[in-house]
Amino acid sequence: MSALLDEMRALNATAAFNVWAGFEVTAAERGTAELRLPWRQEFGQYAGYLHAGLTTALIDTACGFAVMTLGHGGSVLASHCAVDFLGPGRGTAFVARGRVVQSGRRQVFTFAELFAERDGDLTLIASGQTLLVPIPPPPSPGAA
Amino acid sequence: MSALLDEMRALNATAAFNVWAGFEVTAAERGTAELRLPWRQEFGQYAGYLHAGLTTALIDTACGFAVMTLGHGGSVLASHCAVDFLGPGRGTAFVARGRVVQSGRRQVFTFAELFAERDGDLTLIASGQTLLVPIPPPPSPGAA
Amino acid sequence: MSALLDEMRALNATAAFNVWAGFEVTAAERGTAELRLPWRQEFGQYAGYLHAGLTTALIDTACGFAVMTLGHGGSVLASHCAVDFLGPGRGTAFVARGRVVQSGRRQVFTFAELFAERDGDLTLIASGQTLLVPIPPPPSPGAA
Amino acid sequence: MSALLDEMRALNATAAFNVWAGFEVTAAERGTAELRLPWRQEFGQYAGYLHAGLTTALIDTACGFAVMTLGHGGSVLASHCAVDFLGPGRGTAFVARGRVVQSGRRQVFTFAELFAERDGDLTLIASGQTLLVPIPPPPSPGAA
Repeated sequence: MSALLDEMRALNATAAFNVWAGFEVTAAERGTAELRLPWRQEFGQYAGYLHAGLTTALIDTACGFAVMTLGHGGSVLASHCAVDFLGPGRGTAFVARGRVVQSGRRQVFTFAELFAERDGDLTLIASGQTLLVPIPPPPSPGAA
Repeated sequence: MSALLDEMRALNATAAFNVWAGFEVTAAERGTAELRLPWRQEFGQYAGYLHAGLTTALIDTACGFAVMTLGHGGSVLASHCAVDFLGPGRGTAFVARGRVVQSGRRQVFTFAELFAERDGDLTLIASGQTLLVPIPPPPSPGAA
Repeated sequence: MSALLDEMRALNATAAFNVWAGFEVTAAERGTAELRLPWRQEFGQYAGYLHAGLTTALIDTACGFAVMTLGHGGSVLASHCAVDFLGPGRGTAFVARGRVVQSGRRQVFTFAELFAERDGDLTLIASGQTLLVPIPPPPSPGAA
Repeated sequence: MSALLDEMRALNATAAFNVWAGFEVTAAERGTAELRLPWRQEFGQYAGYLHAGLTTALIDTACGFAVMTLGHGGSVLASHCAVDFLGPGRGTAFVARGRVVQSGRRQVFTFAELFAERDGDLTLIASGQTLLVPIPPPPSPGAA
């Protein structure tokens, strides 16, 4: 297991919601990250499929982790997130794959896809993007 | 309490995620709906503020309920959701207010705002929109 | 006519596309701006209504002018624009009203509505938003 | 030249704005389309780069043509368009490549990228998406 994946898993463990819902970081490379969420009955909307809020949470979080793999030094703030719901959220688990599209000093553009696992196959059920703003670390006390 | 609010509360109780997270329907009129979510520590992201996934879930759900107050007969499917994160999700509770912007036969445009409750004051922390597609009910067996 | 409106009109005159298409600045106050575009046959899409590109151009430009009224000192860059097409772009003129939703150091959130003028009435045909990033002016040579 | 490309060029010629601005259809296959716009000075914003309105028009139009290649029978209406501005619109021509992500009975999801041509190289300057609603053709007089 790579050091970067270790680092992303440690980061994941610090976000209470990620732990509560059961998000797992399953892959991380420079500029990309993959999350997995095993299905639980509590995740359902009216029809019993994955709630749109969790669809969006997975896409937004995968985008955020993709950015974190770049090691910006400070932190990043999400400013806009948009999601297309392509198909019903039916599956035994959900896999979100995020990647950085373009990383600049003032903003980072990302993209993610969400797949439903059914009988070992992955079906694309949503795609989306988050726009993030890098926040530089505070100047260290000893710096000029 | 209005019959419409009763109806929206009953609907809310059928969505497992809404119950699990603790969404409450606090107001509903024709074309508008209000949700409330008391803060719990499990809702936090890295910094301990409301997770972007819950921000989006609240906005998307308030938009969906606003549409449901129109009584389309069949159901509605979300096809696109976009959220602007205007400020940090810090508060003792969160209030989402959704409304229908335009309702047509093929699609319904909605808009919602999310407020953080702090010391009795409401601060706008996010706004967003969901685009929904009405699904007509199946023809009844006895219909011509 | 206010000095701010004068200033916005001067700014409008420096953008070749705005001049070419015939955008007029009809109102400007701190945080808001209004544009007007008289209809010309060249603006049509297949069905002869206002082309979606012009709908978006009007909304994006009204958002940009709303930000410019704040006098950020430097310039602003659009990073994301989203538009909902609510109705057919049929009219003798089009009026776009933009406003700043929230202005921060790292980003500015805006919102705009586009109306079609028909027989003196205004009909809402689109709404949208642009997210902009303020670019600070370069440090002046004599500073610090 | 393929029959489909011919058909898309004929369609392009019926949209007054496309002709006026000089959009050319340079490729079309089932589910994808490519547009090209040679630079003209009238296309500039304040700094002389491609106006955001044209960026969006190119992306939205490439998405629309990608859908038209599917031959839905009736027409399609754009309901939502979103664009990320990734870099400055500087170039001697602009190339937009659109594709259908998912086509359903009630809505069609698309995606497009816009490239600036500089010294024969293509640089990605924007990406975006349009959500479209298929409008079935009116029933023919002789039908049932």
